[in-house]
Amino acid sequence: MKHVYFFAQGRAEGTAAMRDVLGGKGANLAEMTNLGIPVPPGFTIGAPVCMSYLQSGTLPEEVKQQVTAAMARLEEVTGKKFGGGDNPLLVSVRSGAKFSMPGMMDTILNLGLNDRTVEALARNTSNRRFAYDSYRRLIQMYGSVVFGIKGADAEGDPFDRALEELKRARGAERDIDLPAEDLERLVAEFKQIVLRHTGSPFPQDPWEQLWGAIEAVFRSWENRRAVEYRKLHRIPHDLGTAVNVVAMVYGNLGEDSGTGVAFTRNPSTGERGLFGEFLPNAQGEDVVAGIRDPEPIEKMGSRLPQAYQELLRVASTLERHFRDMQDIEFTVERGKLFLLQTRAGKRTVQAAVRIAVDLVGEGLIDRAEAVRRVDADQLDQLLHPMVDPRATAEVIATGLPASPGAAVGRVVLDADTAVRSAESGEAVILVRRETSPDDFHGMVAAKAILTARGGLTSHAAVVARGMGKCCVVGAKDLELDEGARLFRANGRVVREGDWISVDGTTGRVFLGRVPLVDPEPGPEFLRLMEWADQLRLLRVRANADTPEDARRARQFGAEGIGLCRTEHMFFGEDRIMAMREMIVAQNAEGRRKALEKLLPMQRQDFLGIFREMNGFPVTIRLLDPPLHEFLPRGPEEIARLAGALGVGEEELTRTVERLAEANPMLGHRGCRLGITYPEITAMQARAIFEAACDAAEEGVEVHPEVMVPLVAHVEELQRQAEIVRSVAEEVLRQRGRRVEYSVGTMIELPRAALTAEQIAGAADFFSFGTNDLTQTTFGLSRDDAGSFLPHYLEAGILADDPFQTLDVEGVGRLIEMAVQSGRKSNPALKVGICGEHGGDPRSIAFCHRVGLNYVSCSPFRVPVARLAAAQAAVGTASGADK
Amino acid sequence: MKHVYFFAQGRAEGTAAMRDVLGGKGANLAEMTNLGIPVPPGFTIGAPVCMSYLQSGTLPEEVKQQVTAAMARLEEVTGKKFGGGDNPLLVSVRSGAKFSMPGMMDTILNLGLNDRTVEALARNTSNRRFAYDSYRRLIQMYGSVVFGIKGADAEGDPFDRALEELKRARGAERDIDLPAEDLERLVAEFKQIVLRHTGSPFPQDPWEQLWGAIEAVFRSWENRRAVEYRKLHRIPHDLGTAVNVVAMVYGNLGEDSGTGVAFTRNPSTGERGLFGEFLPNAQGEDVVAGIRDPEPIEKMGSRLPQAYQELLRVASTLERHFRDMQDIEFTVERGKLFLLQTRAGKRTVQAAVRIAVDLVGEGLIDRAEAVRRVDADQLDQLLHPMVDPRATAEVIATGLPASPGAAVGRVVLDADTAVRSAESGEAVILVRRETSPDDFHGMVAAKAILTARGGLTSHAAVVARGMGKCCVVGAKDLELDEGARLFRANGRVVREGDWISVDGTTGRVFLGRVPLVDPEPGPEFLRLMEWADQLRLLRVRANADTPEDARRARQFGAEGIGLCRTEHMFFGEDRIMAMREMIVAQNAEGRRKALEKLLPMQRQDFLGIFREMNGFPVTIRLLDPPLHEFLPRGPEEIARLAGALGVGEEELTRTVERLAEANPMLGHRGCRLGITYPEITAMQARAIFEAACDAAEEGVEVHPEVMVPLVAHVEELQRQAEIVRSVAEEVLRQRGRRVEYSVGTMIELPRAALTAEQIAGAADFFSFGTNDLTQTTFGLSRDDAGSFLPHYLEAGILADDPFQTLDVEGVGRLIEMAVQSGRKSNPALKVGICGEHGGDPRSIAFCHRVGLNYVSCSPFRVPVARLAAAQAAVGTASGADK
Repeated sequence: MKHVYFFAQGRAEGTAAMRDVLGGKGANLAEMTNLGIPVPPGFTIGAPVCMSYLQSGTLPEEVKQQVTAAMARLEEVTGKKFGGGDNPLLVSVRSGAKFSMPGMMDTILNLGLNDRTVEALARNTSNRRFAYDSYRRLIQMYGSVVFGIKGADAEGDPFDRALEELKRARGAERDIDLPAEDLERLVAEFKQIVLRHTGSPFPQDPWEQLWGAIEAVFRSWENRRAVEYRKLHRIPHDLGTAVNVVAMVYGNLGEDSGTGVAFTRNPSTGERGLFGEFLPNAQGEDVVAGIRDPEPIEKMGSRLPQAYQELLRVASTLERHFRDMQDIEFTVERGKLFLLQTRAGKRTVQAAVRIAVDLVGEGLIDRAEAVRRVDADQLDQLLHPMVDPRATAEVIATGLPASPGAAVGRVVLDADTAVRSAESGEAVILVRRETSPDDFHGMVAAKAILTARGGLTSHAAVVARGMGKCCVVGAKDLELDEGARLFRANGRVVREGDWISVDGTTGRVFLGRVPLVDPEPGPEFLRLMEWADQLRLLRVRANADTPEDARRARQFGAEGIGLCRTEHMFFGEDRIMAMREMIVAQNAEGRRKALEKLLPMQRQDFLGIFREMNGFPVTIRLLDPPLHEFLPRGPEEIARLAGALGVGEEELTRTVERLAEANPMLGHRGCRLGITYPEITAMQARAIFEAACDAAEEGVEVHPEVMVPLVAHVEELQRQAEIVRSVAEEVLRQRGRRVEYSVGTMIELPRAALTAEQIAGAADFFSFGTNDLTQTTFGLSRDDAGSFLPHYLEAGILADDPFQTLDVEGVGRLIEMAVQSGRKSNPALKVGICGEHGGDPRSIAFCHRVGLNYVSCSPFRVPVARLAAAQAAVGTASGADK
Repeated sequence: MKHVYFFAQGRAEGTAAMRDVLGGKGANLAEMTNLGIPVPPGFTIGAPVCMSYLQSGTLPEEVKQQVTAAMARLEEVTGKKFGGGDNPLLVSVRSGAKFSMPGMMDTILNLGLNDRTVEALARNTSNRRFAYDSYRRLIQMYGSVVFGIKGADAEGDPFDRALEELKRARGAERDIDLPAEDLERLVAEFKQIVLRHTGSPFPQDPWEQLWGAIEAVFRSWENRRAVEYRKLHRIPHDLGTAVNVVAMVYGNLGEDSGTGVAFTRNPSTGERGLFGEFLPNAQGEDVVAGIRDPEPIEKMGSRLPQAYQELLRVASTLERHFRDMQDIEFTVERGKLFLLQTRAGKRTVQAAVRIAVDLVGEGLIDRAEAVRRVDADQLDQLLHPMVDPRATAEVIATGLPASPGAAVGRVVLDADTAVRSAESGEAVILVRRETSPDDFHGMVAAKAILTARGGLTSHAAVVARGMGKCCVVGAKDLELDEGARLFRANGRVVREGDWISVDGTTGRVFLGRVPLVDPEPGPEFLRLMEWADQLRLLRVRANADTPEDARRARQFGAEGIGLCRTEHMFFGEDRIMAMREMIVAQNAEGRRKALEKLLPMQRQDFLGIFREMNGFPVTIRLLDPPLHEFLPRGPEEIARLAGALGVGEEELTRTVERLAEANPMLGHRGCRLGITYPEITAMQARAIFEAACDAAEEGVEVHPEVMVPLVAHVEELQRQAEIVRSVAEEVLRQRGRRVEYSVGTMIELPRAALTAEQIAGAADFFSFGTNDLTQTTFGLSRDDAGSFLPHYLEAGILADDPFQTLDVEGVGRLIEMAVQSGRKSNPALKVGICGEHGGDPRSIAFCHRVGLNYVSCSPFRVPVARLAAAQAAVGTASGADK
């Protein structure tokens, strides 16, 4: 079996397609060689060897034979001899896995140096200092990687310590200030360190060096940071790493040498043209060591014009060949360019969009590929203001990045103050322990919301994302003292009225006013979204509760509203009183009287939304939250309300107490309200259909879809749907209009999913409310998960936050069952999702796979969803370089 | 097709096996006829005709022909003529469905009377009064049943009104005081009423009468009260009713006539011997009208010795034939006995047990049938004290019957007072708005628990049932005023210290001390349970948290503990402080210190339980409730605790606030505690295995099963099981003992059920926690369901309370999936259920069907479960008369 793949002089045994075996680096070295691009010769030991080595603990004899043969070929093509005294062959030994794991595994350079060959290197390069510096680096790297000598002593790395002592003794400030003699002495000392730690001298036999290095690189696949990295990036643990053994080239042999890194396009903006840095007369390591500042890559044109021209040519070849922007490393040795690595370059989302669209223009990729090339999750960075990356300001707390964007404003500690200050023209940031629906008007008024408690799907987070408003939640370091009207954080006292800045993209909270930048989605963005829309099968709707939200949703390309929550409409100043009057009413008559006051307001809301969504469907969810959410809590507020409603204070207190619930999430809410108080459902249905008629009379095309929440049993849906349909028919008859409407249900309880076949018989559509479905399936309150869910994610008990990315195994299984059995009894069933997951790319891929008709998400996530839906539709192209 | 089944003179076309067609009454009339038992001749129109009539609205011609032919045969065998002038044939027309629906449908007697035949009847019976009374009854019944004349007028039934007016005019007190002439006049008036209401005269054609009566009886299948009754008793709506047309016999033709009802054994005690009542010279109706008090059946022996001997003979024949105690109706017409009906008699559970066991002794039924004959659900009436049925006392409130039995005691309004009073020897009843784990010690001390809020599965209800303690919950009329140390109910003020009585079997609360009776399960009960144990496949365990519970469980026949909750152990006076110390601790070290104090106490608890359960498995659930349940709430209590623990009051307040949860049911509890605080799991494991070793050293056979609660993801179980196993192995190694143990998990979250295949790979057993599984599957908090669940049940949205009877469609589907997929990956998996449903017969039948290994329930429900498990195993015998 072939384990070792040679490459040299324009011919390689491997290709770019062999990433599984050769790893990313090795595959691309082979590919470049085949393309005639100057690459130092070498060979790659395949990744499967790594796994067999890790299992058996020894290198198979067959592998050893193939490595020996490859080294002989390497000697032949370089004309040098491994361990040879006159013209020694030196090699680098590097890891290289299928997926890039930068810095996670080990590298050894200058392998092949020993007490003899170092002298030959000194001679051949006429640079004794360079030769001994290379040798001491080898010993240090080898000691560390192969023998594990680092941090073993309490005093830190013994090699570093020896180097520092010598520098101190010589009064040398930098490594480079030490002359050759000192480095010779250091080599001797380093060898002593190895002897002391291992009981054996530093191996002089280059073959012993080579085998040790190869095994150490293989072992590094299992070091702690590599394992953690793979967990984090979901890279399988059984891939193993390849090992690249490559002839050394040196960029530090004089002014005609140098080293550099470059992107073939600007990774920040996507602009065409080489972008990078060059350091003359230096090795890659020196850049890291900070000896000199590198120069912009353009300067290389004047220093080494020939090599620079060659680099431009190579860059263009690589881009055209790999059909993507490349991140390359190179060295110029005595005027000659060598490519050491090429890979797809990391880029900002702005650059990703521009490059993808440009590459289509250049005929290198098609539109489907362009759509694949942009990380959908990052897309909404393009739509929100950001903290200026150059800004410096004191971070006083860090919380969870609940809703992206950034904002600057004065601290306010309650919703009423927020509204008052905002009305007087102040930019304010609402800071709360946590928010409740009572705070809604303050959240509307504020530029950003900051809470000390709650997770990524707490009330604050969900509502803020819905509004596209910057939000940081769960900033645990915040200690609120509402009495004193201030909060403490990081030893600072911030009073109400003080300026702070909040970055909802990263979760940071800054003291004072931080400059913001406002990214503008350019024409490339619009082009890409157009392509995405042509490719996707899933419809994309938005969750929107107001005409403003609806308008924004349309601007972002939403094709309807998938979730219009009606309860927020009740929190307006004039409305909450009528709502409370209804709740306090003693009987259906009293409730009906209060509901009559709410009817015209709701109708007006719906009319505004229908106008904005002209021609598109609007799914309106009937009242969902428990009634106690609308009532005040403290005794003063209760007293005030009692006065306003003209009821006894004691009686009202009893009502508030009676309505309080142990687990409101599982309490008297959703359709349970509509069933115990059918007059609420009737009023809402009337408001919807009267508004629909009003809109239709204005020439607006309306498609109301009435959604019954929290159904567990088909009988609940049947009875609610009966009320809705009978009110609808009555209104339409009175108005003499025909309006197409449908009645369906949220599937947000496991029982609804389990009995979907029956429920679908009474439903025109299903909309998966994956927030609540996740809560009930996991038995996990998102408001309370903050005390253990972060630990679960950290400890790897859960790979993802199930409130962010749909839990395919559990919740997803319920969804799949429900879709299948629902369509069985009702083939015309329309099925969508309106939970937070509707804006999450991985969850959208799942929705595509199980055949949903649409996803619905916050307006700001609509572009993300459009792109993710397209990506799900085009799938992963074979051989995509990602 | 045959629609009409004739019976007369010892030959019937039907049999008892034809209940589907003939209904219960008709089938048994046929059967009795075939047995040679004297039954008036007649015929039955099959129930399928009912459904076709209800669909088409007309009687099929074929049916009419068969009825006409049957009437001709009836004329032949009786020697009378239908509508005939000299010797008229009179018939009764009665409904009779497959399942008895007493009083739900309609009956018409004396059919065939008209202006001519009434005279013949008067002549033949020499009783003009009797004849006209029969005629006016026919008109009234016919008017009401066929023409719907009743309550149509605002003034009530016009027939009744006319009769009352006549009596007033005559000064007659009773109907019977009216002479024949008045009754003739009444007949004339009744005919006028019919004419006025229908526009047509009362039909003189007996055939017209007959067809009208048959159709009316068919229609009565769909009257409101019949439909409601079927809903309540889960009788299908598409069965229809048969119609029985039977020649009239009269018990009111003189002193040699009479009527009676009798049970073939005592329906209260099960004692052998005829038990019933006889009314000489009377019709069945007269008993209802209360004209005279009936006599004990024995008296009939002296009045009508021949008929009585015949009755004893018939009763014995019927019992032997139907192999069950019978409830019979009969009439003696001029010395001749006629059986009008026989059916299996209703009986108390005491009687049911005795009769079933006696019938086996008499060789009439086998043991499996005996087991089938007793309603398992009623069995625990035998095990609790009851309110003396003869007692009269003021009911001041009625709540939900949460835990059966009855108790008398003085009112106490908090747990501490309960304990103090109980310690001083008082019988107390703890009255609370609702209970929390904080009240546990008070619940232990009280004779009964009464709450104003909460449902049948609220904390109070669950804990009380677990303790077998009388409990009434959700007594809404109770208005508690803890400040004034009293409650108000039904206009009464009851102060702390006043006597009340509570009936947990019916939900009633009495003022003062009500006498109780203490039913003693007799030898028949023990015999029956023995047979049940031989027949059942399901094992029956108990949920028990203390050695006392464990002992009681064994007494009731439990074969192990299926759920030992460890949290109750932490509420003891000395323990709660250590528990609180642990919760308040700042780090793992502090927690470990506090846990060390709890360790010996827990170990002692487990040792006590292991001793009681010698030889049987004990499933111990690790700590489950959220930690805040252990902390005080009010500021005073917090201050006191802060002092006791030596921490700042403010700091403790913050801890309490920090631990508070929006939805504790879905919060930081179950294995989430063990995962964030692994030291808790380690301590509990240590206590379990040290206790196991201690017990083993005493010669006790121990089988600990450690159960990890609230698992949603296999990874949670894996990590907790790892801790348990490593502590177990360490303890066993230290003690040099081998103890067989297993580690498994509660399946109480939908996600666990959905991913059971994975979870089973890490579990030795599953125990379905159906309380929480129902809560999460339905999204329904049992503590909060009181505000809408009763309405759901009343309105028929749900057929059963899902917390009482397992919801087979939803929750059951999850269980079935989990059992199947769990056993797929782990064929040795042991599977049980430990929710409240483990003691519910219908749920136990489900558990049997899906192949569980055991059910576990409160100790007092163990006999119920044993019997129900046997019933599930023997199934329903074909032709069982139930």
